[in-house]
Amino acid sequence: MNKTIETILNHRSVREFEQRSLTKEQIDILVSSAQAASTSSYVQAYSIIGVTDDEKKAELAKLAINSNTVINSGHFFVFCGDLHRHEIIGEMEEKEVTTAIESTEMFMVALIDAALAAQNTAIAAESMGLGICYIGGIRNDLEKVSQLLETPSHCIPLFGLAIGYPSVINDRKPRLPKEHIYHENRYESDKTIYKKQLEEYNATTTEYYHERTNGERQDSWTEQIGKALENPKRMYMQDFVKAQGLNKK
Amino acid sequence: MNKTIETILNHRSVREFEQRSLTKEQIDILVSSAQAASTSSYVQAYSIIGVTDDEKKAELAKLAINSNTVINSGHFFVFCGDLHRHEIIGEMEEKEVTTAIESTEMFMVALIDAALAAQNTAIAAESMGLGICYIGGIRNDLEKVSQLLETPSHCIPLFGLAIGYPSVINDRKPRLPKEHIYHENRYESDKTIYKKQLEEYNATTTEYYHERTNGERQDSWTEQIGKALENPKRMYMQDFVKAQGLNKK
Repeated sequence: MNKTIETILNHRSVREFEQRSLTKEQIDILVSSAQAASTSSYVQAYSIIGVTDDEKKAELAKLAINSNTVINSGHFFVFCGDLHRHEIIGEMEEKEVTTAIESTEMFMVALIDAALAAQNTAIAAESMGLGICYIGGIRNDLEKVSQLLETPSHCIPLFGLAIGYPSVINDRKPRLPKEHIYHENRYESDKTIYKKQLEEYNATTTEYYHERTNGERQDSWTEQIGKALENPKRMYMQDFVKAQGLNKK
Repeated sequence: MNKTIETILNHRSVREFEQRSLTKEQIDILVSSAQAASTSSYVQAYSIIGVTDDEKKAELAKLAINSNTVINSGHFFVFCGDLHRHEIIGEMEEKEVTTAIESTEMFMVALIDAALAAQNTAIAAESMGLGICYIGGIRNDLEKVSQLLETPSHCIPLFGLAIGYPSVINDRKPRLPKEHIYHENRYESDKTIYKKQLEEYNATTTEYYHERTNGERQDSWTEQIGKALENPKRMYMQDFVKAQGLNKK
């Protein structure tokens, strides 16, 4: 197993950082790494906003309900799905591009492009001995995040990526059984097998929580996820995304 | 610069492979790498389908209009955004989860989860000396891909990932200027600066194509993208995605 794969397999989210900023050089490598990722048909449909302003960082931390991770990070990136650039290309090239950039297809492309770039940044950071934590919590209020970061039409912030020097390192959380995530030639259609895999995984996660909390917590994965999904989150999203001119047709 | 960052920065899409299959061990490491990626609130909202059946591979190659890359790949993965698992969790835990899994928010989560996992697979593969190419072309006809791979409700194939032993290695395509992708504290609002960056980049891409084609091709990036977006692609996507029970509310 090579170093890169070791880095990848050794991932865990780091939520507590030393108060130490990344250098310009480090940030530069992280952004170059993001840019090196594949991009659908060369569209490069994402942007990255680094937040160094203390007030803005504090606001983002508050609305993400993840204060310390954001505030103490050595650098806080926000990854955006971005088709604003393509709106401008329409102007420059005198082409009618609105239908394309407002389509669900291009919305998907922007999300995928942004996530591929972000994961390159995450792996690059971890290879440098830094810790990372994705902050989906910024989606609690994208209206506010957009105002704060002054994102234009056809561009939406998707998630934060907090990077820094780890002060506490957690255990790795167990993942679903491989055969449940990975299928060959066709999706597993036998519900009995499918549910059995989930039950086996429940045993693993229950044991994990039990050990980690000295027996205080012993919920299973399906229990945890079932409870979370019972209370749908961020139901403003569809309207918000459409109001930005994305995912409309 | 460490080996991992070297691997990341050295990425280029490989479209021509030797006819040599990956081993089970290699596939196993690639799937473990995918699973090690971050996942939003631990939902693990993706699945991977490895396509080894020659007929299915040929069908996918045909509809992706990218025949040789798919057919000659050493292994062809299809990454799916998957909330079917969560539908089953609803049954198992007797929770009403439909609103959540049909929301735009969870659709976004599924896409982001799948892309983070895929990029881990891509980097792991490249670190092993393999080449990779994302195949967005499977989205030309997701109805057919779904039938072929028997994906269930609330699960959609997003893109392929062809991996194999490179037989031809292309140059790296130049990326947008860093200052155009990466902003600090707020998105660049000065349109003059913004367009100037695009024009500078056009000079770079025009030169790149000129050199690579002995002067035959000399289009700029904005010209290329403007032309592509003038003809919107895959406009069936919104209806298709909704019919699978995703991105509905």
